[in-house]
Formats: sequence, structure tokens, C-alpha cells
Amino acid sequence: MSLQTPYLLFLGDAPDALAAKVAQGIRDWRPGISVGQFRLPGCKADMGLPDMTIGEAVAAGAKTLVIGVANRGGVISESWKAVLVEALAAGMDLAAGLHNLLRDEPDLVAAAKEHGRKLHDVRVPSVKYPIGDGKRRAGKRILAVGTDCSCGKMYTALALEKEMRARGMKADFRATGQTGILITGDGVPLDAVVADFMAGAVETITPEAADDHWDVVEGQGSLFHPSFSGVTMALIHGSQADNLILCHEPTRTHMRGLPHFQVPTLEALHEMVMPLARIVNPDVRVSGISVNTAAMGEDEAQGYLAGIEEAMGMPATDPYRFGVAKLVEAL
Amino acid sequence: MSLQTPYLLFLGDAPDALAAKVAQGIRDWRPGISVGQFRLPGCKADMGLPDMTIGEAVAAGAKTLVIGVANRGGVISESWKAVLVEALAAGMDLAAGLHNLLRDEPDLVAAAKEHGRKLHDVRVPSVKYPIGDGKRRAGKRILAVGTDCSCGKMYTALALEKEMRARGMKADFRATGQTGILITGDGVPLDAVVADFMAGAVETITPEAADDHWDVVEGQGSLFHPSFSGVTMALIHGSQADNLILCHEPTRTHMRGLPHFQVPTLEALHEMVMPLARIVNPDVRVSGISVNTAAMGEDEAQGYLAGIEEAMGMPATDPYRFGVAKLVEAL
Repeated sequence: MSLQTPYLLFLGDAPDALAAKVAQGIRDWRPGISVGQFRLPGCKADMGLPDMTIGEAVAAGAKTLVIGVANRGGVISESWKAVLVEALAAGMDLAAGLHNLLRDEPDLVAAAKEHGRKLHDVRVPSVKYPIGDGKRRAGKRILAVGTDCSCGKMYTALALEKEMRARGMKADFRATGQTGILITGDGVPLDAVVADFMAGAVETITPEAADDHWDVVEGQGSLFHPSFSGVTMALIHGSQADNLILCHEPTRTHMRGLPHFQVPTLEALHEMVMPLARIVNPDVRVSGISVNTAAMGEDEAQGYLAGIEEAMGMPATDPYRFGVAKLVEAL
Repeated sequence: MSLQTPYLLFLGDAPDALAAKVAQGIRDWRPGISVGQFRLPGCKADMGLPDMTIGEAVAAGAKTLVIGVANRGGVISESWKAVLVEALAAGMDLAAGLHNLLRDEPDLVAAAKEHGRKLHDVRVPSVKYPIGDGKRRAGKRILAVGTDCSCGKMYTALALEKEMRARGMKADFRATGQTGILITGDGVPLDAVVADFMAGAVETITPEAADDHWDVVEGQGSLFHPSFSGVTMALIHGSQADNLILCHEPTRTHMRGLPHFQVPTLEALHEMVMPLARIVNPDVRVSGISVNTAAMGEDEAQGYLAGIEEAMGMPATDPYRFGVAKLVEAL
């Protein structure tokens, strides 16, 4: 799937900033991709973009209205509908990553058809992927792998892309989840791909490239998370990563959603992932560690990172707090 | 999906015995499950069952006509159609594992609807599976894992079930592919399940059971096969196996379909799978080895197995040639 840009960010009636975190991600990582924001009365989120009507957004060149807000249950609220239909009528596509699919709303389907526009449900694969073949491809690839789900893999990969581009390197973040797809306008919702085609989907979004080009692949799940380890495995083999970044959240007491599973150590992750990754790329190495230290004080975080660097013999940082320069230098 | 039994085995116009290998699997592993066979003129396959018309099969109690033959391309031949429609009209469901789905044939869909019968495409999941949770369940589980795809995992698991039942043990083969599903009438076509639900699907077909009950789970793919390793991973974590059987085909020169990948050794598989399997079951162990020695002479096979037993320190057998008594004794 490829979304047409620029975007109009739809914030709806977001009750707080957190409800609009998808919009915030787009704003943070692709600051130039949106011409403005659309807010309904009572909206408590603000991306600092010009507030626009649908007509103003189209006049400013907007091609896709992106639903950057989620309400409880991920449904498409009736109060949004009139705006969404107006956007379709005015010539914009719609894109969303909600559980409630755009395509399951008959009035949106009818309006899209009438006006020749597209409904992009980025939670659902729109491409028929091939079966993976594991053939070595030119170009370089980095994959973020975690001790758990939701421990900063997407943030780490986006921060790497930004830092690498700032240094003049050729780097592309490759999204494998819905938020990443909305941020960059492209990618694969890997958790929704049929099992046989997972590795092939990852190969498809990290194609052969110039020797000095880097794909920075968003990780998913964890080898240690029994609900989703198969998805992680497909990423490791599909990406044939040259460099792995280990991601960790040190204050978590158990695996996400699984109180009966402990979070492994970074050392355990390192030992587990390397032989698996070597199957498709004998030269793979772990080049650094990304730690989400949000729950720690500044000194504590610095001390923790220094300890990890000494124990593991490789650079460790919190991308949000201290940037990823160290990780890029170690590539 | 649960298929109604007994079956009528449809052999169609099979050009040779190999074309009817699904029917042969049903005949071999569930000898009492079929009341008869249906053959079109020119059929070269024979299951040694009574040849029956549709009317005779229904009179004998047949509830499902199973397409046990595949022609080139896996299509539903026009010459089969009249028989299939007749079976639906006579009150039988249809079941098939072909690429060409029964549900994609309008005349079959119409006949099924008219007569209130079901079309079972066992290649497609018919159940909405939950996300796996990795919680420990009572009962015992055995999983066949391979150095490669198609190296005897299904055969090994079916042979184990048969031997265990013959010894009075409670054992159920759990199918994870289309042939296994047709043989037993139940299971999950794991390679067609959406990524997020793979582990949950495996948990669903290996539910909590009595302490002395054994699920014998059909393996898929290989951790070393980059096209399908994610599916294998989901089986390892979803089954939370107590016992693993390593499966191997020693004369293969490369991974199936991937000439650029070597087949690993049994030792390499052993080292790779154990730490992954321990995540969900700390007590897991490899209890034996199953080798497909079809390409070896009898003496060579015996010598090879003896060498493996000595090197690995556990029982090794070729289930087809020498049975699986050793593997059952080692559980």
C-alpha cells in the first residue's frame, strides 16, 4: 500500500493528546508530510499545524485524510462521518489503522465509489505477497528486536532513520505495523499477513538496494513472547539483517499481557537471536542496544546504560533521552 | 473445522496411485473411517475399498465425500462436477484440500445451499482463533520438528499416535496441514492462519487435557527454512511441547525449494530448538529422532541410525521402515 501525500491530519474529537498519538507520530517523524489538521468541537489534541476545513486542505494540496485519533474501541464515530464523506467528495482518499475498518462502513464505501477515491485500512494487507526465498540481496538492513513487545522498537528505528539521514546516509524506515505505515505512507501490517507469506512480505518491503543503502526495519513482538514469536521469527529471516539493535524496557516486571512470563535479559536475547539470524546472514552482528528508560531518573538511566555497555561490550542509549548517535556510529 | 464421518473417498480419474496420496493417507491412518471409494472411468488408483455409487455410499452411512485426489494444478475438474453435485443432493458434505477451493465454484455453492450441505475447504481456516497466551495446560504434548520441510514430520506423528494407541495410551494426532486434517477430520491449516493468531490456533487444537493424555502435534516447516520458520516458531510456542522428536532426511543436498541453503545437522537443530522451546516449557526435552532413510539401503540405514544414536545419545529410527516403538518407549 502506498498512501498519497500530503496528508490532512484528522484529530476528530480527541479527548486528550494521547488519543491522537498516531497523528503525533506522523507530526514528529514526517513533519513536512501534512498540510494541516482538522479538529471537531471539543478536540483536546493539537499538532501545532494550521486548522483547516476540508476545502482549505484540498486547496493546499492534501491528497489523503489520515485518521490520527483513536477513540475507545477503535470505532469510526458517527460524529466523524460527515467530515469523512465530505473529504471523499472533495477528492481526498481516507487512511486509518482502526479496528473498525473504513471498508466496513457502507456510507464511506458508497462515497468512495461515487467519487473515485480510495479507502486505505492499513491494518489489513492490500498486497498479495510472495513466499520468501531467503536469497541474499544487495544493500544493508538493520532490524530492531526486543526482549518484549512495545518496548521502543518503532521509535528506535525511526530515530535511527532520522539520524542517518541527517548524516547524509541513505536510510529508509520500513514499517511493519499500522502506525509506522501511516507515518511513512508505506509498509506491511505484518501481524495481519497470512502465515505462509510473512517472510516474503518482509523481503518485499526490504528489496535489493545500493550497497550503501540502509533499510531500518521496524521490529514486532519478541522471540520470548509466545503469542507473537512467529511474527518476530519471520522478521529475522525475512529482513536478513546485517545489524541488529536489541531493545529493552528494564523496569517491566513481566511480558506484556502475560503476567506468567518474565522479561528476559538483554544477554538472553542476544544469545537467542544470533544463531537464528545467522541462518540467513552469516555476517549479522548486534551493533547496539536501545533502552526505554522513561521510568528512571536521569542519573539512574545514565548509570543503567553505562552498566549495560560494560556488561555487553557495545553501545547502549535511550533514543528518546540521549539520541541514537552512538548506535549510528557503531554500524 | 470438524468433518462428519464416515467418508466416501473420491478418487476421480486419478492417473496413478501418487495422485491419490491424500486418499491413501486416509486409508492408511484411519482404515475404518471410509465406507467406500468412488472412481471415474480410467481411474488408476485403488484403496482396496468397495466401489460405490453415491446412492450406495449414502445408504452405507457416508456423511462426507472427501476429494482424495489431486490433478495437475489442484483444480476441480469439470468431469468431477456431476458427481460432486450428486453427492450434495444426496445429503453428503464435500471436503477438499485443493488450491481450487470448493467455495469458488458457483455450481457447488448453489447445490450446497439448495440441499443444506457444507463445503469444507480444509486449506482455509474456518475458525476465528484467539491470540495465544502461553499459559501452562495439563496434559502432555509431543511436537515433531524438522531440519527441513517435508522430511517426515506428519508420518512420524501419525505413526506415534498409532503405536501409542496400540499400547493403550491416550493419544491424539493433531493436524496442522491439509492432508492431516482430511485424515483425521479436524485440525488447523496453520500456514493459512493470520500471523497474530498462529500460536493461538496451535493452543486451540492442543487444549488442556488429562495428565495422561498425549497430543501428538504435526510439525510444519523448519526453524532453518527462511520461508516458513515463523510458522515453526508458532508451533514450538503454541504447543508448549513436553517432548520433541527431531526429523531428518539425511540424503537431501539443500533445503527444500532453496538451493542456496544447506540442510542443518540434527545437532544444530537440537541446539537451536531447545532454548526456544524452554521459553514456554522449562521441562521440554528431545526424546528421539526420526529419520527418513528411503534413499538408503537397509544396511546403510541401520548403520546411519546406529551412528546417530551414539552421537546424540537418544533413540533414532525410521518410522516407515523400523516402526516407532523406540520413540514411544523413550517418552
